[in-house]
Amino acid sequence: MLCVGLDPDVSRLPTQFAGKPNALAEFCIAIVDATAQSACAFKPQIAYFAAEGAEAQLEHVCEHIRNAHPNIPIIWDAKRGDIGDTAKLYAREAFERYNAHAVTVNPYLGTDSLEPFFAHSGRGVIVLCRTSNAGSGTFQTQLIDGAPLYEHVARHAASEWAQLGEVGLVVGATYPEELAKVRSLVGDMPLLVPGVGAQGGDAATVIRVGRASNGYGLIINSSRAILYASSGDDFAEAAAGVAATTLG
Amino acid sequence: MLCVGLDPDVSRLPTQFAGKPNALAEFCIAIVDATAQSACAFKPQIAYFAAEGAEAQLEHVCEHIRNAHPNIPIIWDAKRGDIGDTAKLYAREAFERYNAHAVTVNPYLGTDSLEPFFAHSGRGVIVLCRTSNAGSGTFQTQLIDGAPLYEHVARHAASEWAQLGEVGLVVGATYPEELAKVRSLVGDMPLLVPGVGAQGGDAATVIRVGRASNGYGLIINSSRAILYASSGDDFAEAAAGVAATTLG
Repeated sequence: MLCVGLDPDVSRLPTQFAGKPNALAEFCIAIVDATAQSACAFKPQIAYFAAEGAEAQLEHVCEHIRNAHPNIPIIWDAKRGDIGDTAKLYAREAFERYNAHAVTVNPYLGTDSLEPFFAHSGRGVIVLCRTSNAGSGTFQTQLIDGAPLYEHVARHAASEWAQLGEVGLVVGATYPEELAKVRSLVGDMPLLVPGVGAQGGDAATVIRVGRASNGYGLIINSSRAILYASSGDDFAEAAAGVAATTLG
Repeated sequence: MLCVGLDPDVSRLPTQFAGKPNALAEFCIAIVDATAQSACAFKPQIAYFAAEGAEAQLEHVCEHIRNAHPNIPIIWDAKRGDIGDTAKLYAREAFERYNAHAVTVNPYLGTDSLEPFFAHSGRGVIVLCRTSNAGSGTFQTQLIDGAPLYEHVARHAASEWAQLGEVGLVVGATYPEELAKVRSLVGDMPLLVPGVGAQGGDAATVIRVGRASNGYGLIINSSRAILYASSGDDFAEAAAGVAATTLG
């Protein structure tokens, strides 16, 4: 159930990568290979590459995962959302340029903004529902017809969007009661759960309240606790150790 | 009040650009120079570059605008939205890597997800409110305490977010009544209005109902009608002609 988040922060890389031109890719590939035994998915966070102008390195990381670990899906974490013609291009970026298995998207623009992602048959579309950040309640918990906005997103996913293709939802580990509620609304749908580790969510609680009736349905993400388990030459070994024990 | 949207679709470029390695940048720069006299802003749409792996060409376009037209702001249209640590990186991408004057962002993750953009003092943060697409009502028009979600976004912008920095809102030309309502809620705040031209919005109506009390406050975007005014060698001249007359 563990998803290893690839959020390579240049200021926190192990010292051996200092000044290397392909440091982000080399670091991520070392983490990928070290944690593959424990990982059900890898989730590169696009912003870490984009801020450095390192899209080519991200392409290289995705290609490595496809070749070396063909059974482990890539969740391209970009949280894109735009009108149809533009969303088509983001879908091409995610599923063709980077050849990701799934992508995270933002529901604010509505169903027609999600359709171009679903049009890529066999790929996953993971919609933001209740995000892990402290301020996510500004709009997500506001009541519409007596239920919070995030529950309406979950209901759309379980009915309308599930008809369009492979849909999942993002629900933060930092809100376990809401996670339980979402699980009750969506059956066995996959839930991507960030917020375990550095953000304070508890893995055991997430598994207890968020597991589907079939025992699966959870993709629990951890990024920083694994990536930065050690800043020394043993960083990959340390990452493997943390990954192996993150979910208890 | 005219914003020229830079949405360079490789399949629709004038024939003279066919097969050129820097076609997107060369086309955009020709459009920029031809329409600068009529433009109050340029709005590159990131997806068109990202789908082609052409970030370097977008950097080049932004640099050209900064150098050749220093008084015309660049609105980096990416509609990003993520938790704080990640939003910081997207803000760096927008304001440092591309040196944009303003960026479009998505409000779904809440106020704390917008703060890293506001932290770049002197730059603009333009938040999605009521988007131009047909399906934008899935969530944006749902009622919270008797008012649609997009009005709540507008109220947050006028109160809380206006305290954080330079804020604006995206409101589609395709919903003129909602545009009038948003204007009534936000005083003289800048509104970025897409949807004129190919999407069917009417510029005269937008100006009548959306103008601020000071006569300004509107940034009316047109992309395709200008960019593809001609597919021949006269494309730049044709674009200049359409740009000069778009707002009547």
